[in-house]
Amino acid sequence: MTRAAVWEGSAIAVREVRLPEPGPGETLIRISAATVCGSDLHTVSGRRPAPCPSILGHEAVGVVVATGADSPVSVGDRVVWSVTVSCGECPRCRAGLSAKCCSVRKVGHESFAGDWPLSGGYAEHILLPAGTAFARVPESMPDVVAAPAACATATVMATLEAAGPVTGRRVLILGAGMLGVTAVAACSVADADVRVVDLDEQRADSATGFGARPDDGGPADVVIDFTGSTPAIAAALGRLDVGATMVLAGSVLPAPPLAVDPETVVRRWLTLTGVHNYEPRHLTRAVEFLETTQADFDWAELVGSPVPLERISSVMSPPGSGRLRSAVAP
Amino acid sequence: MTRAAVWEGSAIAVREVRLPEPGPGETLIRISAATVCGSDLHTVSGRRPAPCPSILGHEAVGVVVATGADSPVSVGDRVVWSVTVSCGECPRCRAGLSAKCCSVRKVGHESFAGDWPLSGGYAEHILLPAGTAFARVPESMPDVVAAPAACATATVMATLEAAGPVTGRRVLILGAGMLGVTAVAACSVADADVRVVDLDEQRADSATGFGARPDDGGPADVVIDFTGSTPAIAAALGRLDVGATMVLAGSVLPAPPLAVDPETVVRRWLTLTGVHNYEPRHLTRAVEFLETTQADFDWAELVGSPVPLERISSVMSPPGSGRLRSAVAP
Repeated sequence: MTRAAVWEGSAIAVREVRLPEPGPGETLIRISAATVCGSDLHTVSGRRPAPCPSILGHEAVGVVVATGADSPVSVGDRVVWSVTVSCGECPRCRAGLSAKCCSVRKVGHESFAGDWPLSGGYAEHILLPAGTAFARVPESMPDVVAAPAACATATVMATLEAAGPVTGRRVLILGAGMLGVTAVAACSVADADVRVVDLDEQRADSATGFGARPDDGGPADVVIDFTGSTPAIAAALGRLDVGATMVLAGSVLPAPPLAVDPETVVRRWLTLTGVHNYEPRHLTRAVEFLETTQADFDWAELVGSPVPLERISSVMSPPGSGRLRSAVAP
Repeated sequence: MTRAAVWEGSAIAVREVRLPEPGPGETLIRISAATVCGSDLHTVSGRRPAPCPSILGHEAVGVVVATGADSPVSVGDRVVWSVTVSCGECPRCRAGLSAKCCSVRKVGHESFAGDWPLSGGYAEHILLPAGTAFARVPESMPDVVAAPAACATATVMATLEAAGPVTGRRVLILGAGMLGVTAVAACSVADADVRVVDLDEQRADSATGFGARPDDGGPADVVIDFTGSTPAIAAALGRLDVGATMVLAGSVLPAPPLAVDPETVVRRWLTLTGVHNYEPRHLTRAVEFLETTQADFDWAELVGSPVPLERISSVMSPPGSGRLRSAVAP
């Protein structure tokens, strides 16, 4: 048996669950830590529809404890894994959009009552199906640094790919949460001139520790949005210089439409592009990025001290005290 | 002396003009033919502001008759040339956006009363400054086939670059004018599944001769707009499949804003990108494309019989009889 925190709509209950044997292509993981992504907060607060009951949590790190035939990892490997589980064969997978697989399933997003109950990270164990992507985690990387790789950091890597090269360019990051600060750091190490805006000035200020300069309201070559706020996006749209790209990544909830002037898009060669989740290569890059920047940035400082599974409800609200992520250590 | 058709606001008058000696980097061309781009019709009809008086015309072909030191072409060369003339040194030129050069000048868009009077194609001669891009035209290519390369065909090449690979993809072209039909042909030879829509059903039908299949209203991986119509763009936006790209190229006049749903852009990995004018490589590709497809498509059929310079006013309205371009042979 194992234990899992099952979200039941009005509450989260820790339940005993039968520990499955991994079948072909499957992998059983003992979870070391899981961080709490903002989208789980949206689910729990009712702002995002999701299967219920379910085990939430899609940012986690753990150790492989059992594998079925053809699992891509080995017992004892310390790993992070993709949010999306894809078939690898449908037109979208073949087109390189595995995150949008026609039969995609998602870690931390599946019904506890279905055929994949142990799908979330807020549990002692998770069973990962064939079609999950993995990245090995270096020994030197603390659990709370590695866990966000599977959502926040990998998504940031996808947004940076969509943005194109940022070296020497003026980059504006909208939102100084976990993704925004990670993007600031990534742009900073790529020698971009990076600024960040956030309604919470203290959060924006703290991003200076990750390489952001004070925002001067000037033009930008690249904008990456993590807020999902239409007014914030609209304001930044007006700051795009000729040839600029705006990457939208925060708009994962219904929002008012964005008014786009077609003539401006054409005459200024603007690009507006969306990113949702990421591809396996971005997960690999996420771990590499966190590893190579461990000496530059105090990633662990962004995450609150992990609480045990029984106290998960206490971290199902935005963290305070300058933290950007809460954590659970099942 | 030479002769030029000078647009004076209310009328176009053929005037005698002193023939200049090309200075350093400059090139003097004897124009063989010029085709009439829709944007000149907009200028003459008052829908587009432009310097006045001026010599219009930015789609032309001709033969080099004199060169200054360091001209990139030689006397006797038969050439087409770029719409935009760029400095090559400003930040935008260095960033590869020479069409948006900080001190850009444009063929067929400059004041006749300024320091570059012979700037347009509706004249016996044109003087091209340093910073103009050229492409040599094969002998086998008729004048009326080569002339559109400098605007219509090269712009289409830029939109296709922005769209990314189209082979095997579902491409929807909005507008079956000269650019739309050229895009249809280019997508067709690239083995795309290409459809076209146009309010004028006869024009849309005639695009089948260039490889378009009947539009079934289904989803698209790539949309390229040449209409500039916000309702047409909005309708096509709703047809973008996951991972799709919409290239806007027709929106060169003020138009109502386009309402874009940020969540859809994000969740469906959509890209919206604008193209205006083109880079020198696109002019080269345009001539190559027209050359390699001469056997497949009757490009000359799209252009009306050239009229002499004196009769230019008679072709300053949209051509009928299934033609997509009028022409002048000065």
